[in-house]
Amino acid sequence: MINVGIIGASGYTGAELLRILCNHPQVKLTVATSRQYAGKPIADVFPNLRNVTDLVCEDPSASQLFDKADLFFAAVPHKTAMDLVPNLIAAGKKVIDLSADFRLNDVAVYEDWYQPHSSAQFLEQAVYGLPEIHRAEIKNCSLVANPGCYPTSIILGLAPLLNNSLIDTTTIIADSKSGTSGAGRAASTATLFCEVHDGFKPYKVGRNHRHTPEIEQELSLLAQHDIKVSFTPHLLPISRGILSTVYASLQKDVTEDMIYAMYKKYYAIEPFVRLLPPDQFPATQQVRGSNFCDISIKVDKTTNRIIVMSAIDNIVKGAAGQAVQNMNIIEGFEETTGLNLVPIFP
Amino acid sequence: MINVGIIGASGYTGAELLRILCNHPQVKLTVATSRQYAGKPIADVFPNLRNVTDLVCEDPSASQLFDKADLFFAAVPHKTAMDLVPNLIAAGKKVIDLSADFRLNDVAVYEDWYQPHSSAQFLEQAVYGLPEIHRAEIKNCSLVANPGCYPTSIILGLAPLLNNSLIDTTTIIADSKSGTSGAGRAASTATLFCEVHDGFKPYKVGRNHRHTPEIEQELSLLAQHDIKVSFTPHLLPISRGILSTVYASLQKDVTEDMIYAMYKKYYAIEPFVRLLPPDQFPATQQVRGSNFCDISIKVDKTTNRIIVMSAIDNIVKGAAGQAVQNMNIIEGFEETTGLNLVPIFP
Amino acid sequence: MINVGIIGASGYTGAELLRILCNHPQVKLTVATSRQYAGKPIADVFPNLRNVTDLVCEDPSASQLFDKADLFFAAVPHKTAMDLVPNLIAAGKKVIDLSADFRLNDVAVYEDWYQPHSSAQFLEQAVYGLPEIHRAEIKNCSLVANPGCYPTSIILGLAPLLNNSLIDTTTIIADSKSGTSGAGRAASTATLFCEVHDGFKPYKVGRNHRHTPEIEQELSLLAQHDIKVSFTPHLLPISRGILSTVYASLQKDVTEDMIYAMYKKYYAIEPFVRLLPPDQFPATQQVRGSNFCDISIKVDKTTNRIIVMSAIDNIVKGAAGQAVQNMNIIEGFEETTGLNLVPIFP
Amino acid sequence: MINVGIIGASGYTGAELLRILCNHPQVKLTVATSRQYAGKPIADVFPNLRNVTDLVCEDPSASQLFDKADLFFAAVPHKTAMDLVPNLIAAGKKVIDLSADFRLNDVAVYEDWYQPHSSAQFLEQAVYGLPEIHRAEIKNCSLVANPGCYPTSIILGLAPLLNNSLIDTTTIIADSKSGTSGAGRAASTATLFCEVHDGFKPYKVGRNHRHTPEIEQELSLLAQHDIKVSFTPHLLPISRGILSTVYASLQKDVTEDMIYAMYKKYYAIEPFVRLLPPDQFPATQQVRGSNFCDISIKVDKTTNRIIVMSAIDNIVKGAAGQAVQNMNIIEGFEETTGLNLVPIFP
Repeated sequence: MINVGIIGASGYTGAELLRILCNHPQVKLTVATSRQYAGKPIADVFPNLRNVTDLVCEDPSASQLFDKADLFFAAVPHKTAMDLVPNLIAAGKKVIDLSADFRLNDVAVYEDWYQPHSSAQFLEQAVYGLPEIHRAEIKNCSLVANPGCYPTSIILGLAPLLNNSLIDTTTIIADSKSGTSGAGRAASTATLFCEVHDGFKPYKVGRNHRHTPEIEQELSLLAQHDIKVSFTPHLLPISRGILSTVYASLQKDVTEDMIYAMYKKYYAIEPFVRLLPPDQFPATQQVRGSNFCDISIKVDKTTNRIIVMSAIDNIVKGAAGQAVQNMNIIEGFEETTGLNLVPIFP
Repeated sequence: MINVGIIGASGYTGAELLRILCNHPQVKLTVATSRQYAGKPIADVFPNLRNVTDLVCEDPSASQLFDKADLFFAAVPHKTAMDLVPNLIAAGKKVIDLSADFRLNDVAVYEDWYQPHSSAQFLEQAVYGLPEIHRAEIKNCSLVANPGCYPTSIILGLAPLLNNSLIDTTTIIADSKSGTSGAGRAASTATLFCEVHDGFKPYKVGRNHRHTPEIEQELSLLAQHDIKVSFTPHLLPISRGILSTVYASLQKDVTEDMIYAMYKKYYAIEPFVRLLPPDQFPATQQVRGSNFCDISIKVDKTTNRIIVMSAIDNIVKGAAGQAVQNMNIIEGFEETTGLNLVPIFP
Repeated sequence: MINVGIIGASGYTGAELLRILCNHPQVKLTVATSRQYAGKPIADVFPNLRNVTDLVCEDPSASQLFDKADLFFAAVPHKTAMDLVPNLIAAGKKVIDLSADFRLNDVAVYEDWYQPHSSAQFLEQAVYGLPEIHRAEIKNCSLVANPGCYPTSIILGLAPLLNNSLIDTTTIIADSKSGTSGAGRAASTATLFCEVHDGFKPYKVGRNHRHTPEIEQELSLLAQHDIKVSFTPHLLPISRGILSTVYASLQKDVTEDMIYAMYKKYYAIEPFVRLLPPDQFPATQQVRGSNFCDISIKVDKTTNRIIVMSAIDNIVKGAAGQAVQNMNIIEGFEETTGLNLVPIFP
Repeated sequence: MINVGIIGASGYTGAELLRILCNHPQVKLTVATSRQYAGKPIADVFPNLRNVTDLVCEDPSASQLFDKADLFFAAVPHKTAMDLVPNLIAAGKKVIDLSADFRLNDVAVYEDWYQPHSSAQFLEQAVYGLPEIHRAEIKNCSLVANPGCYPTSIILGLAPLLNNSLIDTTTIIADSKSGTSGAGRAASTATLFCEVHDGFKPYKVGRNHRHTPEIEQELSLLAQHDIKVSFTPHLLPISRGILSTVYASLQKDVTEDMIYAMYKKYYAIEPFVRLLPPDQFPATQQVRGSNFCDISIKVDKTTNRIIVMSAIDNIVKGAAGQAVQNMNIIEGFEETTGLNLVPIFP
C-alpha cells in the first residue's frame, strides 16, 4: 500500500485518476490539488465522486504537500509540469507526468513545437510510458512521461508492422478522431455543447498538432529510422474515445492472415490490447471507460495498402488509465490492478 | 462462491448483468442464454465484453440448463418470465426476475395492465426487490421481483415524505425522463438513432404506462392508504439515465431544513442513496454506470409544494445493479459487493 | 422593403435572426453589431452564413449606427437593453427587444427579479410580443418586448384553458425542458459539451428562474386573476428545442373531446400553432428550425388532471422567429413572410 | 410550374425531398408514394411536415400514378429502381433516380458490386447528376442518376486537382465519415440510438463499400485515366452530414496558394460550393440542412501531400437537394430555385 497524490485534480484527467484510484486496492489517495477549487470537497467539483471520496482540494502551493505521498500524478498543463516535476523528483518522489513536457527525447524538437524547456536535464531519465513498448524501462524509472492520447492509439496500431518492417514508412497517414474531453475542462466557446453537438470537423490540419513529433519519435524508434507521418486530428461529438484509421503501403508480399498472426504474437501477453477477429472493427463505444486498446487490420490488395484501426478511451488508456498502469509497473503491483474496468455499453 | 446464470443475456439489461457480474468476487457466471445468438460467444454479441468473459450464448431450451447455476437472473420480457420462473423455482433455484410479471401483488391489477397471468400463485411469495424499502423480506425469499426503472426513481424519491405523512397524496405528479436503453435492443424504427437524437418527447401520457400500477402499489404501501399518481414518461436522447421530477403539496407546516433532516435520517444507512446538499440537483450524467440514486428536495413556499428530484442509471439501479444488490442480500454477501461502480463522468 | 439592423449579432439568437432575415423578401439587412467581433465578417463568426450574407460586424458604438435602419432587433443581454432601447426609440426607430427588460408591466416585479430599471417609463408602451395573445396591440406599437422561450411554450399551452376557465389555477405545474442554446454562446464550463452531453438535469428549481414572473403575468392576464405557478426548468442535451409538460386540475366536467374542440377553435387562424391529433404528442425534433408551436392535450380522468404538452424551437418561436413574426405584424407584412421554415427532421 | 411526384416518400431522403419541394415556387407536388404507409397522411409519417403538406401517401402500384406528374423523383432502393425507372421513361416522364442503379456506366462493374442489371440499356442515356461536373449533359437528359452521398463529397473535393493533373493518382486515400441518416429509416438493431450514440466506428473497410466504383468512375473520367482509391467509411453519431478527408501526394511543385487559386477558379460560378479561406476547415454542422459543399485544402510540405476536406449534408447535397438542383437544370429553372436553404447552426 502506497500513498499517492494528484497535482491538478480538477480537469477531466484528474477526475478520471480519482475515479480509478479510489477503487485501487494497493494505493491510498492522500492528496489532490486544485488551484481553482482549493478548499472545496472533490464531491462538489465532481458530483459523480460523492460518497466515493472525501478528499478536499488543496492548493498546489500548500506547504508539506510533497510529504503526503510517495508517488505523484502530475495532471497539469505542459509548461507548468516542467517546473513542478523537478521539485517532486528532488524530494525523492516518483512521478507520472501526464503532460507533454518530458515525452520528447530531443530538447530541440520540444522547443520547436512548444517553448523553451527549463528542465531539459530530466529528459534523459524520463521514460515514455507506453508499457507495451517500453515496459522494461518503465519498471526502473522514477519519472514516467505518460503518452498523449492520439500517439497511444497510433503507435499501438502500427508497432507490429514497424517491428516486422512490413510497410513503406514514407506512406503513413493517420486520420484520427477524438472525443471532446481531450480539449479539457476550461471554459471556451469552441467546445460549448452547441458548437460540438451534432457536428464533426478536422482541426490543426497539416502538421500543426503537437502530438506529431511524439508520434514520429516513437514510430522512428520502432522502425529504427526516421519517419514522418501525415496526422490529421478531428473532433467527434462524443465525450470519450479516440479512433485512429491509419494507412500505409505494404512493401512485402504478405497476406492479411500472416499480418494478423504477427499482431497476435506481438500482443500475445498484453492485458489491455484486444486484437479483433477478422472483419470486426473497433468502435469507441466498445472501449468506453476502460483501459483497452482495440485493434483491427484490413489489407486492400487492389491498392496494396493496409488499413489499421485502433480505438481507445482517450482519458483512460489515453491518459489516466495508462498512468495507473505505469504506476503499477513501477511499484511492482500486478499490472492490471485497479484497471479491471469493463467497457460501458451502451 | 455461487454459480449464477442469466436467462436472456442479449438485451441491454443482460449486457449490464454480464458487465457487473464478471467482476463480482463471490459469484461465478456459468451460463448465459440467448435464443437469437445461441452458439455465439458473448464477445461477438457485445464486443465491449471481449477478453472479459469467454461465455458462449446457450439456447434457453438447452437440457440441464438449470443444473448449471444456483441462482438465476431472468432478463426476459414479461409474459415469457411468467412461464420460466415457476420452472426455476420448482428446480430449487433462487430467482431474480427483472420482468414485470411478479411485481404486482394483486393479480387483477396485473391482468388489467398486462395480460392473463399463468402463475399467479407465485405472486404472494415474490418480494418487490427495492432493498431500501423491503430489505428484510428480500433476505428470506427465493423470488425477487426486481423493480421497474421509473418506479425505482419515484419511490425512492417519495418514501421519506410518505413515511412521515408530509404530503397530500392526491397531489402527486411524477414527470419522468428516461434514456433510450429503457426501450430495449430490438430493431425498431421508433428508437433509431435519427429518430431520437437531438430530440425530446413525452410518450404514453395520461395513465398509459405500465409502470403506473407498480408505482401506485408501493407508494400506497408506504402511505398506508390508496394513492393515484399522474405519471408522465419522456424519452431522452441519452443512452442511460432516468431523472424524475416529482411534485406534491405539503400538508404540514415544515421547513426545507426539517424535511432535509428527515431524508438524511431515512437514508442514513443506505449505501446507494446519495442525498445531495441543499441547492445541488441530481443529473443523470453524475450517476452513469453506477448503482447510486441521487436525490434532492426543494420546497417552494409560494405554492406550498415540494419538488423531489431523483436520478438513477436506468440499467444499473433501475435494473441490473439492483438485481445484483438483491442477490447480495439473498445470499448474505456484503450488500455492496461487486457494486463499487464509480459513476463515469464525463 | 425596409432596412433592418441587429444589435448584438454574435450570440445564437443573433445568428438565427441573420439566418431568417437574409431570406426575408421584404427587408434588407443593413447592419449587424458585435462588440467582440467588430470588423469581422459575419461569415467568420458564423461559417454557416458564408455566401449567405456579406455583412461585416460593426461596433455597437459606431456613429450613425441608428441611421442605417428603420427597425432594430435588440439581441443584447437584459440591463444592456434597458440603456439601448430608449435611444433607439428616441431616434424614431421601431424596436423588437429580445431581452427581458420590457416584458414585465410592473417595475417592482422587474426589480425584484432583476435589478433597478433605468427606463421604467417605457414599460407602459412596450407590448408583450406573443402574437397569438396580443396581436392587436403589437400592430400599433413601436416597442415589442419579445417573450422568453419558456414562457412562450407555457402560455401558448395554457391559453385556451384559462380563456375558458377550465382549470383550478392554483394547481398549475410547468415542468419544462430546454436545449442548451438557451444558455447562450459565452464561454463557460457549465455548458461545455462534456458537461451536457449524454446527461439531463434540473436547474434553478423552486421559483428561482427569472422567467417565472413573466409566465405568471401573462397567465394572470388570461385568467383575469392572480396566478402563481410551479415552474421547473431542465437542461436537455440537444441544441434547440423546448418541451413543456404542464399539469393542472380540471374544475369543470369536461371531456377531452370538448377541450380539444376548444383548442381547435382558439387557434383556428394561427399559422404557427399546430394542434396535434389526439394521442399524438409533440417532440422537439419535429419543430426544429421552424416557427411552429406544437401542442397536445391529454385528460387523465382518474386524477381529474389535464396534461398539456407544447414544443417549440427555443431560438425560433422562442426568440428570433417570433421576433420576425412581430416585425411582420408591425410593418403590415403578411405575418408568415420569411417564416416558411419547414422543420428539419431528422 | 410543373407537377412532380416522389416514388418512395417514407425514407429520410423522401422526407427531405418533401421538405424542399413544398417550398419550391415552380413545382407542384402532386403525388408521394409509400407501400408501408399507403393511405396515411404524410403528416402522420413525418410530423414535422404537418401543416406543410396535405398529401396522403399512395400505394406505388396505384393505377394512373404516372399521369399525376411530369417529373418523378425515384427514392426507392437499388434493384427496385431498375424495374421502376424504365416504366417511367416509357411513359414519357423525366426521372431523377436517387438509387445506385443508373450511376455506373459499365454494366459489368455494376453487376460485380450489386446484382444482375435488368435495365442495362438505360445506362447509356442516364447522366451522372453531379452538376458541377456534368451540368451540360444533365440539361438535355431525361434520366438523371443522382450521385451517392460519399462520392459527391469526394469527387467535388478532388476535381480541381485531377483537372490540373496535380496529384499522383495512385496515392488517393479518402477517409470519410457519415451521419446515421445515410443508413436509412428501416428498423435495425445496428442503427438504434443506443448503438450509435456517443460512439464512432469504421465499417465496410477495405474496398467493401458500394460507393467505391462510383467514386473511381468519376475520378477516372476527370483524370482521363484509370484510378483506384482507398475509401474508408465511418459512422458518426450525428443525424446529417458527411465529412471526407482526402489525402494525395503532389506530383508537381506547387504552393498551397497556387492550388487555392485553382480551386477558386474551378468553382468560381458554382452557387453551392464554398471554398473556405486558408486555415478554416469545414464542419458538418456548418452545412446542416443546406445544399452547400464546403471545401478546404491544406498542403503539408514535409510529406509533400495535399489534404482536401469537404463537408456536405448527406441528405441535401448528398441526395435530395442535389436531386432538386438536377431538376432545376433539366427544367430550365434558375439552378438555385428552392435551394436557398441556409445552414442551421447551432
